Amino acid sequence: MEAVLNATVASAHPYFPISLALPHYAANTLVLGELLGYFSLCVVAVGLVAAFLLTQRPQLSALERATFIWFLVSGCIHLFFEGYFVYNHATLAGDSSLFGQLWKEYSLSDSRYLSSDSFVLLMELVTAVFDGPLCFVAAYGIYSQSPVRHIAQALVSLAQLYGDVLYYATTLFEGSPHCTPHPYYFWFYFGFMNFIWIIVPTSLCLQSCTYLYRAVARVQALDGRKKVQ
Amino acid sequence: MEAVLNATVASAHPYFPISLALPHYAANTLVLGELLGYFSLCVVAVGLVAAFLLTQRPQLSALERATFIWFLVSGCIHLFFEGYFVYNHATLAGDSSLFGQLWKEYSLSDSRYLSSDSFVLLMELVTAVFDGPLCFVAAYGIYSQSPVRHIAQALVSLAQLYGDVLYYATTLFEGSPHCTPHPYYFWFYFGFMNFIWIIVPTSLCLQSCTYLYRAVARVQALDGRKKVQ
Repeated sequence: MEAVLNATVASAHPYFPISLALPHYAANTLVLGELLGYFSLCVVAVGLVAAFLLTQRPQLSALERATFIWFLVSGCIHLFFEGYFVYNHATLAGDSSLFGQLWKEYSLSDSRYLSSDSFVLLMELVTAVFDGPLCFVAAYGIYSQSPVRHIAQALVSLAQLYGDVLYYATTLFEGSPHCTPHPYYFWFYFGFMNFIWIIVPTSLCLQSCTYLYRAVARVQALDGRKKVQ
Repeated sequence: MEAVLNATVASAHPYFPISLALPHYAANTLVLGELLGYFSLCVVAVGLVAAFLLTQRPQLSALERATFIWFLVSGCIHLFFEGYFVYNHATLAGDSSLFGQLWKEYSLSDSRYLSSDSFVLLMELVTAVFDGPLCFVAAYGIYSQSPVRHIAQALVSLAQLYGDVLYYATTLFEGSPHCTPHPYYFWFYFGFMNFIWIIVPTSLCLQSCTYLYRAVARVQALDGRKKVQ
C-alpha cells in the first residue's frame, strides 16, 4: 500500500495511470467504512422491499424468491447507481454526493469511470437504459408468473454477461493501466464485484434457455412440429 | 475527396486520425472494384450453399428460408472474416491477403481495426467465438425445426445488436476521429454496412420473443400456470 501511495505523491489525485488529468478532482469526505456501509444499506433496503413484496406470493419457490430479489437489486443498481454515473460522468471526479463518492471509491479500481472512457460510458448507458428496466420486467415476470419471465431473464442476463465480459477484457488486454495496483482494488472491486455479474447471469441465462427449450419442445410435440400459432 | 487526399499527404498511410502510427502499413494491391467483387463473391457462394441445402426443405416458408440464409451468411462473416481480424489484428496494416486487404479497405471508415483498439478487438472476439457459432445453431434450428431455433435466434440477435450499438456509439461519442472524412466511407462502410446488423437482429429478436412468449403462454395455460416440467 505504501508503494502505491508513494507512486501517487506526484499526482494531484490517487488514480491510475498517474498521468491521468482530472483537474476537477475533489477528495472524498466519507471514509471507506462509511461508503461501504451506505452502499450496503441501499442494497439491503431494496432487498427488504423485495422480501416484503414476496410475502404476498407464498407459492413461489426459494429459487424464484432469490431470483426476484436479484433482479430488483440488480435493476436498481443498473438504473439508479450506474444511471447516475452515465448522467454525471463529466463531473464525477469532483462530485461529493453519496453516489459521487461511491463512484470515486470504485474508480480506484478503474479510473475509466472518471475519464469518460467511451467504452465504459456507452456500456453503462446500455446497462442503465436497457438492462435496468429489463431486470424489472424479469422481476415482474416472476412475481406475476407471466410468460415474459424467462424471455426477459435470458435476454437481460446475456446483456449483463456481454457488458461484463467486455468490461473485464478491455482493460485486462491493455495491462490494467486504470487500476490502482493494490490487491484490494484489483481483486475485490474490479475482480470480485464484477464477477457476481458473470456467475449469476450465466446461471440464470442457462436456466431460462432450458425452460424455454422444454416449453417449445412441448408445444411442437402438441402441434406435430408446426408453428405455435 | 481532394481535401481528404491533401490532408493525408503528410501521413505515411491514408487512415484517420493522421497522427495514427502504423509503421508496418503496406498499401493494398487490389483496387476497390476487385475487393467489393471478391467479398460479394464470398457472400454469394455461402448464399448458394444455403439455397442448395434449402432444396431439401420444401416445407419451410419464404421468411424461414431468408432467415436461414441470413444466419449462414452472418455466421460465416462472424467466424471467418471477423475471426480473421481478431487473429491477425496486430499485423493487419501490412497484410496483403484478400481478407487483409478487405479489412484495410474497411478500416478507411474505422482505423480502430488497424490500431488494435481494445474495445473493437474484444467486441470482435466475442462476435467471432460466440455470435458466429450461435448463428449456425440458429440456422440448424430452422433447418431441423428444432426447439433451439428461437432461443438461439433471440440470443444471437441481441448479442449482435449490443455489439453493434456499442461499436457505433463509442466512436460517434468521440466525434468519429477514426473515420476518413468522406461520405462514402462514413455513410456506406461505417453507417450502412453496420446498420444491417441493427435492423435484421432487432426484427429477428422481436420475432423470437413473440414466438417464445406464445409458446410459454400455451404451456402455462395447459398446466394451470405451473412449471413446464
